[in-house]
Amino acid sequence: MTQSDILHRLSETIEARKQADTDNSYVAKLLKEGQDKILKKIAEESAETLMASKDGDAQHVVRETADLWFHCLILLAHHGLKPEDVLQELEKREGVSGIVEKASRTTEKTG
Amino acid sequence: MTQSDILHRLSETIEARKQADTDNSYVAKLLKEGQDKILKKIAEESAETLMASKDGDAQHVVRETADLWFHCLILLAHHGLKPEDVLQELEKREGVSGIVEKASRTTEKTG
Amino acid sequence: MTQSDILHRLSETIEARKQADTDNSYVAKLLKEGQDKILKKIAEESAETLMASKDGDAQHVVRETADLWFHCLILLAHHGLKPEDVLQELEKREGVSGIVEKASRTTEKTG
Amino acid sequence: MTQSDILHRLSETIEARKQADTDNSYVAKLLKEGQDKILKKIAEESAETLMASKDGDAQHVVRETADLWFHCLILLAHHGLKPEDVLQELEKREGVSGIVEKASRTTEKTG
Repeated sequence: MTQSDILHRLSETIEARKQADTDNSYVAKLLKEGQDKILKKIAEESAETLMASKDGDAQHVVRETADLWFHCLILLAHHGLKPEDVLQELEKREGVSGIVEKASRTTEKTG
Repeated sequence: MTQSDILHRLSETIEARKQADTDNSYVAKLLKEGQDKILKKIAEESAETLMASKDGDAQHVVRETADLWFHCLILLAHHGLKPEDVLQELEKREGVSGIVEKASRTTEKTG
Repeated sequence: MTQSDILHRLSETIEARKQADTDNSYVAKLLKEGQDKILKKIAEESAETLMASKDGDAQHVVRETADLWFHCLILLAHHGLKPEDVLQELEKREGVSGIVEKASRTTEKTG
Repeated sequence: MTQSDILHRLSETIEARKQADTDNSYVAKLLKEGQDKILKKIAEESAETLMASKDGDAQHVVRETADLWFHCLILLAHHGLKPEDVLQELEKREGVSGIVEKASRTTEKTG
């Protein structure tokens, strides 16, 4: 079983939680609380990733990055999106290398 | 080719950039500038994900989440880590569901 | 001259920049670029405050907090607000102490 | 009574809480929990300021900016600093205008 299956399976679990009892499911509770709570968690986990990195604690960086990606999956589900959408976006960029690639995105954003 | 291959291939590309000319590679330049610049980018992309979500622009959420994950891959490379480390961490948590799972992480963090 | 005068004077300077040439004024340029650019700067300066603190560099914490508050003043100007609005809000909370005060805000937010 | 007195008085209250019972004081509890908890709150309040602004809710922007500044005061206390240090830093920058001023800070940071 490949690892992308993990992202795919997690997103299916999150989808299934949309109907779940909010008393027993962290994900169901967060989806019910809505967008602002999900976004606040993303901001928190992003900050914790920064702090783990500044501590030089690689295993902590792994756990906080996992938390960050997990809450991104919940945000994607909130918007009816899937991790595959993000992975395809990353694939489109592959091959377009380095500064050139960044510049092209910058142009796209402001254009 | 599965999508996890994308994360894996991107991480290999990032690794290869560690030796690249910083004039021509965004990734090489960022790795050279060091941890604080990488972390600042993660904070920026996290904020842009929030703003895209508040705008209700799903395609923008996809692009900003891709930016966020991409810069996480660069941070992982900075620490000698791989996306597989994060995916394995996510896999460990799978099956441990909902609030229970969150509670177990909280205990782990403070324990 | 008291220090609140500094916040007041800075806010007046920022107001005056709303009409200024964007080529010569950082503030005029940022106000022209609009809300998302201002918010992105707040997220950046917030992250830099975190990193300065983790470095244990007190003078850097002072500089980054000044950057953060300065960009908050620009956001307030964007919304037609003044630092006095924030200081009055802080004054309202004074005297309401500790956890009680926090709890009252939490109730207010969700109520 | 001027408004800067508010920042000064709040910082004195926060100082006094360093010795207070953590059961009854939010500030005492946060100072006891330490730097990472304070920084996490700054990241959270920064994100909430972003969201309030995107909602176009000016009174919410005022409340979240007050929360953000309040937690900055706690961080300053953690480092043995005072709001006056930040206000003096802002005063030093006053008069140095716009892009020129920003450029000078950038040079300082990298120099």
